[in-house]
Amino acid sequence: MRHLGRKNNELRPVTIETSVLKHAEGSCLIKCGNTHVLCSASLDATVPPFLRGQNQGWVTAEYSMLPRSTETRIKREAALGKVSGRTQEIQRLIGRAMRAAVDLKLLGERQIIIDCDVINADGGTRTSAITGSYIALHLAIAKLMDKKILKVNPLTQQVAAISCGIYNDVAIADLDYIEDSNAQVDANFVFASNGLIEVQATAEKKFFSEQQLTQMLELAKLATSQLFMIQNQVLLTVL
Amino acid sequence: MRHLGRKNNELRPVTIETSVLKHAEGSCLIKCGNTHVLCSASLDATVPPFLRGQNQGWVTAEYSMLPRSTETRIKREAALGKVSGRTQEIQRLIGRAMRAAVDLKLLGERQIIIDCDVINADGGTRTSAITGSYIALHLAIAKLMDKKILKVNPLTQQVAAISCGIYNDVAIADLDYIEDSNAQVDANFVFASNGLIEVQATAEKKFFSEQQLTQMLELAKLATSQLFMIQNQVLLTVL
Amino acid sequence: MRHLGRKNNELRPVTIETSVLKHAEGSCLIKCGNTHVLCSASLDATVPPFLRGQNQGWVTAEYSMLPRSTETRIKREAALGKVSGRTQEIQRLIGRAMRAAVDLKLLGERQIIIDCDVINADGGTRTSAITGSYIALHLAIAKLMDKKILKVNPLTQQVAAISCGIYNDVAIADLDYIEDSNAQVDANFVFASNGLIEVQATAEKKFFSEQQLTQMLELAKLATSQLFMIQNQVLLTVL
Amino acid sequence: MRHLGRKNNELRPVTIETSVLKHAEGSCLIKCGNTHVLCSASLDATVPPFLRGQNQGWVTAEYSMLPRSTETRIKREAALGKVSGRTQEIQRLIGRAMRAAVDLKLLGERQIIIDCDVINADGGTRTSAITGSYIALHLAIAKLMDKKILKVNPLTQQVAAISCGIYNDVAIADLDYIEDSNAQVDANFVFASNGLIEVQATAEKKFFSEQQLTQMLELAKLATSQLFMIQNQVLLTVL
Amino acid sequence: MRHLGRKNNELRPVTIETSVLKHAEGSCLIKCGNTHVLCSASLDATVPPFLRGQNQGWVTAEYSMLPRSTETRIKREAALGKVSGRTQEIQRLIGRAMRAAVDLKLLGERQIIIDCDVINADGGTRTSAITGSYIALHLAIAKLMDKKILKVNPLTQQVAAISCGIYNDVAIADLDYIEDSNAQVDANFVFASNGLIEVQATAEKKFFSEQQLTQMLELAKLATSQLFMIQNQVLLTVL
Amino acid sequence: MRHLGRKNNELRPVTIETSVLKHAEGSCLIKCGNTHVLCSASLDATVPPFLRGQNQGWVTAEYSMLPRSTETRIKREAALGKVSGRTQEIQRLIGRAMRAAVDLKLLGERQIIIDCDVINADGGTRTSAITGSYIALHLAIAKLMDKKILKVNPLTQQVAAISCGIYNDVAIADLDYIEDSNAQVDANFVFASNGLIEVQATAEKKFFSEQQLTQMLELAKLATSQLFMIQNQVLLTVL
Repeated sequence: MRHLGRKNNELRPVTIETSVLKHAEGSCLIKCGNTHVLCSASLDATVPPFLRGQNQGWVTAEYSMLPRSTETRIKREAALGKVSGRTQEIQRLIGRAMRAAVDLKLLGERQIIIDCDVINADGGTRTSAITGSYIALHLAIAKLMDKKILKVNPLTQQVAAISCGIYNDVAIADLDYIEDSNAQVDANFVFASNGLIEVQATAEKKFFSEQQLTQMLELAKLATSQLFMIQNQVLLTVL
Repeated sequence: MRHLGRKNNELRPVTIETSVLKHAEGSCLIKCGNTHVLCSASLDATVPPFLRGQNQGWVTAEYSMLPRSTETRIKREAALGKVSGRTQEIQRLIGRAMRAAVDLKLLGERQIIIDCDVINADGGTRTSAITGSYIALHLAIAKLMDKKILKVNPLTQQVAAISCGIYNDVAIADLDYIEDSNAQVDANFVFASNGLIEVQATAEKKFFSEQQLTQMLELAKLATSQLFMIQNQVLLTVL
Repeated sequence: MRHLGRKNNELRPVTIETSVLKHAEGSCLIKCGNTHVLCSASLDATVPPFLRGQNQGWVTAEYSMLPRSTETRIKREAALGKVSGRTQEIQRLIGRAMRAAVDLKLLGERQIIIDCDVINADGGTRTSAITGSYIALHLAIAKLMDKKILKVNPLTQQVAAISCGIYNDVAIADLDYIEDSNAQVDANFVFASNGLIEVQATAEKKFFSEQQLTQMLELAKLATSQLFMIQNQVLLTVL
Repeated sequence: MRHLGRKNNELRPVTIETSVLKHAEGSCLIKCGNTHVLCSASLDATVPPFLRGQNQGWVTAEYSMLPRSTETRIKREAALGKVSGRTQEIQRLIGRAMRAAVDLKLLGERQIIIDCDVINADGGTRTSAITGSYIALHLAIAKLMDKKILKVNPLTQQVAAISCGIYNDVAIADLDYIEDSNAQVDANFVFASNGLIEVQATAEKKFFSEQQLTQMLELAKLATSQLFMIQNQVLLTVL
Repeated sequence: MRHLGRKNNELRPVTIETSVLKHAEGSCLIKCGNTHVLCSASLDATVPPFLRGQNQGWVTAEYSMLPRSTETRIKREAALGKVSGRTQEIQRLIGRAMRAAVDLKLLGERQIIIDCDVINADGGTRTSAITGSYIALHLAIAKLMDKKILKVNPLTQQVAAISCGIYNDVAIADLDYIEDSNAQVDANFVFASNGLIEVQATAEKKFFSEQQLTQMLELAKLATSQLFMIQNQVLLTVL
Repeated sequence: MRHLGRKNNELRPVTIETSVLKHAEGSCLIKCGNTHVLCSASLDATVPPFLRGQNQGWVTAEYSMLPRSTETRIKREAALGKVSGRTQEIQRLIGRAMRAAVDLKLLGERQIIIDCDVINADGGTRTSAITGSYIALHLAIAKLMDKKILKVNPLTQQVAAISCGIYNDVAIADLDYIEDSNAQVDANFVFASNGLIEVQATAEKKFFSEQQLTQMLELAKLATSQLFMIQNQVLLTVL
């Protein structure tokens, strides 16, 4: 049994409230237990310089934690004048995950910018951000289809993500902050409906076995299939 | 009559939801019409260098807009690597307003950091931030009193703020974004229960008269007295 | 009586020496007592990106203090790698004041950049900078008229500024550094010949009354009418 | 068959020249085909602030590419004034890998800084950097043991890394730049003698299967066991 | 004959006005023709970190050009967020020159910071800055002696500087901007009463001969001996 | 006799290995005793903004020290976020020296970027960088001639550089780090086959005589004539 009575494969309660931002093409507030992330998808009429004139679009992501999303207040990166390595790593991960969901040719020469702002942090902020970003992205694309800005739907697959870990030698899914801080292995899995998009697993203590990797992978597959259903229910309600 | 049927002295609906951040000593989400600001007050064990060893505390503020709080997405200041002049001006204003509410000697050698993050922007974000920050500050101080970290209450007066303007040659209160963009004069007033804390009035077109300043001041006094009541109702409910 | 024998409404001696910079279209060194500010107006052939193609001009300002303009040497912002909040607030104020003096349509698609560099500081640097900048701006526009770069004079009104305060419960004008450091209320007023351009009043201790605001406003109106005359005398001599 | 006649599981030729830097406690130049990385390990008497007084050490890493290590010259990050997201991601990865090799308690309150500078880049720079960094770290620790600065050897396991990928639907090891640019899946594996330290796999096109992950993992295990032997031969010669 | 009728060895008119800054320990405004530089020397109670506890002082310098000291306005380095290579090169040169004038042991553990701000630029700003900085430094040390902060005079030699060049194949001294822009060789010489402190000579076109270097050196020796006399006259008047 | 038995005019052993970078148009690793510098010359299709449309090319240089090229590890300038004054001074010097070797008109509207990265530092890194950069530049231009990108050879003269100094009152050439740290005068000379390109001499203690300058100049002329021969032998072998 885990510290709040959860089973090893049990997700924290997930809720997704859509259209929380008045101006964004798509947005949601995803709550996975006490981890709350505001996700938005914004249409941008330009593409980055390296893609100009190539007749394709781009999806990119930015991630930030509110200063008091954590137990101890963290300094704003704007005040520090630079974006930390951790932040950059996470926003690159979110960007790759969202690009995997989209046919960039069909998007045309335009960009969708995903913003993920963590309101409350209790472990799994990057995976919650990915699961929520998919909703924001889906809603934004629906709006662009609706407005005839896009003629063909560029979404090619559904995307969700989950963190897993080895904790007391056992594989568990959806770690909260306390579990995360004490895990032997920390892993993040991004799944599409058809297969894997990204695997990241790190030994926090010394090393782990291939078997442990497989166990976490199984938990992640199960968890993301549940998240796909939750995403679909939300989308059914609002579209 | 104003564009959404409001009277010249009529505020937009105000709601204040408290304790929206799990970790902060005090926090609230203030909604003034479609302007939504998340305010938090965090205890910091240290004071800025210029105050060390002087046996007094400090209150400071930081302000930021979520990238998609606005019609057109704005770039993150963290990504740009610097805080804009507008942001600095606003967070200095909020900081001064909050310090006016506190006896810094009674606070002891500790700091309270106010964070204001705009979720949705529709005019009056800085004044809404001040009105909300007072709630976050009040709640934080109540918690510090409760935990016996503070023995004597350092709060000396209540603080609220409102924007006013001259629009079509008439003074109006609580401008939304459309009104703000077209006003001849743009003014912000910070009031304590006993008097003024700050007045800022700017001619957006050429100049204004002393009489117009006085008219706006009257509207602001009325508006902030209403905001004081709303603040007190919220505090009564939760303390 | 004030500490150097001045009356409450009495300005420090004001002198304005023009054309102190060899290259600038317009320049002056304004001395208000021991506050000395070098002001220049430079023609720039381009406008900021947000104004391109809109058939109008722009006036902007930059402000800086020499490292040893103050009692204790201050670090150069260039060495620190960023412009402080105070500096940005001041240069935004100067820019707004100068734009209020100019019909930007008549300026055409070009920019005038005002530079204010404080040589010696003894209170009131931002208001002295505004009063001096008007001279630099006026001289620059005269030169552009002279050279037929401008056909119609875009200057629409005269601008001057003054600081006032409440000191020992009494309203006084043109505070020097010692008065400024001990004032209960600190206010800056920018006046055009026809009315107000900007009012900024801040309680340095707790709060102030509407009556005190009105008293400072009266002093400021009187002071700026004197500054208008001094400006006009200077301009008469050199144009 | 791969484009230069390599088998799917075949590594490029690996050579490791030690002590190429005159001053560093440990250093080597590792060449994996045309990927050449200079690795050094430097003793630093202090630990980062978050570890002070905790009676343990730290190992961290920095990574950089020479401007002309690539086909097209890349700008120096020093000239750009910031470290890119890619660089930060890589140096965090190298740092984690090296920390996994060391008992930080046994290191005492001191830090070892790993520097990896890419002289020539042809794919796999981050994994070559890890394999080379282990040699630099090992040599540095041998020197510190020799000088009696360390009494007990803090090295707990050997570390090497390899990139794998899915290319034309087949799993291959040690991708060069051309293969890497065209791979469907890009993965990096960091192995210790006893198990996995880090797994990172990313779908460059849409998604990949669990079976493909397993195939790459097998190739990586084989490859790193060969790299362990090469590392041991080098160390035997010089220690 | 040179373009304004000067002889090859003839200096432009030099004037030095002292104590132009109210607060600085020492200051002057030096005018060499149309090159005007404000120089100040400020006492700082601390020394840089690398000198702490070594029982010696330091002299350092900062240099800046006012935005409109030049024909075309230059951007403020504070606004650009960094100090240019040219500025750094010049302030390092001024700092070395001033340190050569002072016995740093006798200065005690304190620092003198020289600030050189160019008001008008017409060639030779760095050498004028050095000649003026010596006056500011001398005045500051006289004040510190006067106040008994220093017991023994740490000044060991007098310092002045001049630019020379090869222009139309002829060596000339004290180049103005037009000459400087067209010179074949550009050189700066810093002299003490007893000998050379610094020589910098650069071929702006291809190369120069040893003989040409010697000719410029002779002109520089003559010029700085004149500057020493001017400095001494100024110091005699005010001390 | 010098501390390692060298004569006053004796160079350390010099070796130059060419084409050490796979991708650069020209490159070499120059070793002057224990000072090792990697030099490369890269063709860039654009010129800096100030030269656009002027039908001429540019040569510029960047310089960096590997963190552990020195006895004590130095921080990366990329991590510090800015390029130091020393680095800028050196790269400006290298750039000027290389431009002196090239007829920029003949280069056409393209740029050659020189990169100098110090692998091991033992005094004289900037002069070794210049001597090596000439080789990289020569090789790059040979390649551009070979590829018919250039029709006429823009190289106009050969360039080499050496450091000299006054040490124990005697002039010596090619100082190593220990000599450099204790020298009374520190000088760098850049020579072309036909004459001087740059002279920089600095008194590290108080002052030096014209005679001492002449002695160092003689040593430098002799040393660079030897370096010209070494350069020519290297170029003969590879071209």
